[in-house]
Amino acid sequence: MYDHVKGVRDFYPNEMGARRAVIDSLEDVARRYGFREIGTPAIESADLYIEKSGEEIVEELYSFEDESGRHVALTPELTPTVARMVVAKQQELAKPIKWFSTRPFWRYEQVQQGRYREFYQLNADIFGSGEPAADAEILALAADALTGLGLGSEDFEFRVSHRDILGGMLESIGGDADVQEAIRAVDKREKVEEGEYYGLLEDAGLGREDAREFDGVLSSGDLETVLEFAGTDRVERAVENLRAVLGAAENLGVGEHLTLSLETARGLDYYTGVVFECFDSTGEVSRSVFGGGRYDDLIESVGGQPTPAVGVAPGLAPLSLLLDRAGVWPDEAISTDYYVLRVGESDRVAQVAARITRELRSRGQVTETDVSGRSFGAQMSYADSIGAETVVIVGEQDLANDEVTIKDMRGGDQTTAPVENFPGAYDRPTYDDVA
Amino acid sequence: MYDHVKGVRDFYPNEMGARRAVIDSLEDVARRYGFREIGTPAIESADLYIEKSGEEIVEELYSFEDESGRHVALTPELTPTVARMVVAKQQELAKPIKWFSTRPFWRYEQVQQGRYREFYQLNADIFGSGEPAADAEILALAADALTGLGLGSEDFEFRVSHRDILGGMLESIGGDADVQEAIRAVDKREKVEEGEYYGLLEDAGLGREDAREFDGVLSSGDLETVLEFAGTDRVERAVENLRAVLGAAENLGVGEHLTLSLETARGLDYYTGVVFECFDSTGEVSRSVFGGGRYDDLIESVGGQPTPAVGVAPGLAPLSLLLDRAGVWPDEAISTDYYVLRVGESDRVAQVAARITRELRSRGQVTETDVSGRSFGAQMSYADSIGAETVVIVGEQDLANDEVTIKDMRGGDQTTAPVENFPGAYDRPTYDDVA
Repeated sequence: MYDHVKGVRDFYPNEMGARRAVIDSLEDVARRYGFREIGTPAIESADLYIEKSGEEIVEELYSFEDESGRHVALTPELTPTVARMVVAKQQELAKPIKWFSTRPFWRYEQVQQGRYREFYQLNADIFGSGEPAADAEILALAADALTGLGLGSEDFEFRVSHRDILGGMLESIGGDADVQEAIRAVDKREKVEEGEYYGLLEDAGLGREDAREFDGVLSSGDLETVLEFAGTDRVERAVENLRAVLGAAENLGVGEHLTLSLETARGLDYYTGVVFECFDSTGEVSRSVFGGGRYDDLIESVGGQPTPAVGVAPGLAPLSLLLDRAGVWPDEAISTDYYVLRVGESDRVAQVAARITRELRSRGQVTETDVSGRSFGAQMSYADSIGAETVVIVGEQDLANDEVTIKDMRGGDQTTAPVENFPGAYDRPTYDDVA
Repeated sequence: MYDHVKGVRDFYPNEMGARRAVIDSLEDVARRYGFREIGTPAIESADLYIEKSGEEIVEELYSFEDESGRHVALTPELTPTVARMVVAKQQELAKPIKWFSTRPFWRYEQVQQGRYREFYQLNADIFGSGEPAADAEILALAADALTGLGLGSEDFEFRVSHRDILGGMLESIGGDADVQEAIRAVDKREKVEEGEYYGLLEDAGLGREDAREFDGVLSSGDLETVLEFAGTDRVERAVENLRAVLGAAENLGVGEHLTLSLETARGLDYYTGVVFECFDSTGEVSRSVFGGGRYDDLIESVGGQPTPAVGVAPGLAPLSLLLDRAGVWPDEAISTDYYVLRVGESDRVAQVAARITRELRSRGQVTETDVSGRSFGAQMSYADSIGAETVVIVGEQDLANDEVTIKDMRGGDQTTAPVENFPGAYDRPTYDDVA
């Protein structure tokens, strides 16, 4: 007997039905926002990540040589791929470019709750606008996607910050601090002990005193305190930009979901402006659910014209933890509109059952019928197991009277209907329609 | 500048929109038939294919060692995976099991028209019934899936045969013919020259005379001729089974799409009963579009209880060739319900435009608005490029009169509406509603 590979999952129909409902809901919001679906390969040149994604991702890369000796990788994230696609058609594409897709990615990492080696994400990105309205559009999309799933403002919050506030503050401290490394330390702030956090800041080149003061400003969560600490042009512009983004998101009706949080940094190297992470407001799901932000330099770095960009990528596994915690993970029960039950071996039974099945299906109804030659009892039991709402019984005796039996599987009531008239003009005839 | 890996494809929104319409249509038919969606991993143990799939697939396998030294492969087909999933929950799953999914697969093969190294398939399978009704259900599903895409009976045909007719005939010839090899030769019959075909039959151990006679019976396409040639119990049962399947499919209303074709063999080793292939009736698309059939031994061979199975797997790339040829490939133009255009920098313009955008989106309308701070002309040009039906213009001057302008992008007519009343009670207000 074979098993699946460690860290990947099989989804059986009940769980998959719930996942599909979540994906449909997320994608429906993206479509209403005017994001367009794209399709992307699962395999890319390994170089695309080795040169662009930062150490953490490269260490976890599933990469190998194909038959012709190409060094290829299973895509660990979407951003480098969409950046490559934007560059390939930079001239023809109308800006802003608003793209989304839902698909699996692969990272060889430690398997734990809500984290797998094969994981599914919706990605939504806007290319070609550096305006605060674009960041706000991404924040609003993400918030509406969550409320569309039944989450309320008491369930989640987006902690919003700005990379140039962090970078600008570190710059103003001066010395030989490594800004990227210090930002990665901030990203780890909530995940490690205080001592380790300060150790990481010191490793990044911050003196103990500076590190304390820097962290104090972050903790204040107050933009005026930031401006007092580092009144450089860069920091002033970043604060202004962050305020404009929050204001534009407020106009789009999602202000209640946003919290200013200077400790939010995001792990990936390529972010350049507003960054945000979604958290469970109750804290029960302790890790960040997903995140996003602005990455204005990436397109140029993969060979394109300078093109500002901002995006978000909710992952299904962490999202399912939040939806579960909030009690809004979709019902996993399977449902079926009709089961057409056959009793008897005659050609007429077979023909009538097939005709009714075909007509119900052509009316859009989910309809199953016997494909196993089973007894009445076995068919009834199967109809029950698939949650059939109505069973249409096609049997020799009823057919002798030119009738079929319609059984309501909730209440158990049943009645007969003239066979020629079923399903007739009805799109979805139930016991109540016929009785 | 980076390019995608050879043999995989990037799908931009126009093409992806058409592909999504095709996938939605195929999946909608599968759902109405009561097939349930499953989710499956992209990575499996390489052994699953090396031991079960036959040479042709193993030669084209993308396989590699992961970090922990596991020999894994990108899935080249779905059947071994679903067989594994059935075995893993054999006791709990209600039979028949009817599953579908749409996803990519990977084979390292020669890239040509309609054939790629990353290719997308819908797979639909029934496990747990060996009855003709199950084969018929798969044939009817496949035929309805194609007619649902706009193809008519003049566009395609399913060529249907039975592995036990081929196997039983070869057995009755006697001698030391290798049945699997001879069946693979039959599968190549249409793809190679006559001389090569007979060479392959001889390689499989058939004498020249026997090969001619065998092929003569196949060409006759007549089941009585088959029975005369090989009146063994095995062949008689196979003929009876094939006739029952065709009759049950006729009852399901898809008889007009089926042709008996004894030359149809299917390349994969694991088929055991009815097999079929879909062809373009005009012959313009010369290769088989897709195929399917019964594979009753596979579940047992991967460690499960004996479980009959039958399935079909239409691939998007060859299907798109047929849909193109028939002129029914979906429109690739992008459409948008509304573009909300902003003129002026005032807070009121920003707030009103954001509110209208939000309200239209919440009514389910695909709505875009300016995220780039662009001019009236640039916004109009963008609205046109995304196929916006209606443009709502929010400008300082109109707002001074508490109005917005509603512009019909087809005819070019425009009118004003009171800002407080827009979109008001309408789900989808157009120029005609407002004028």
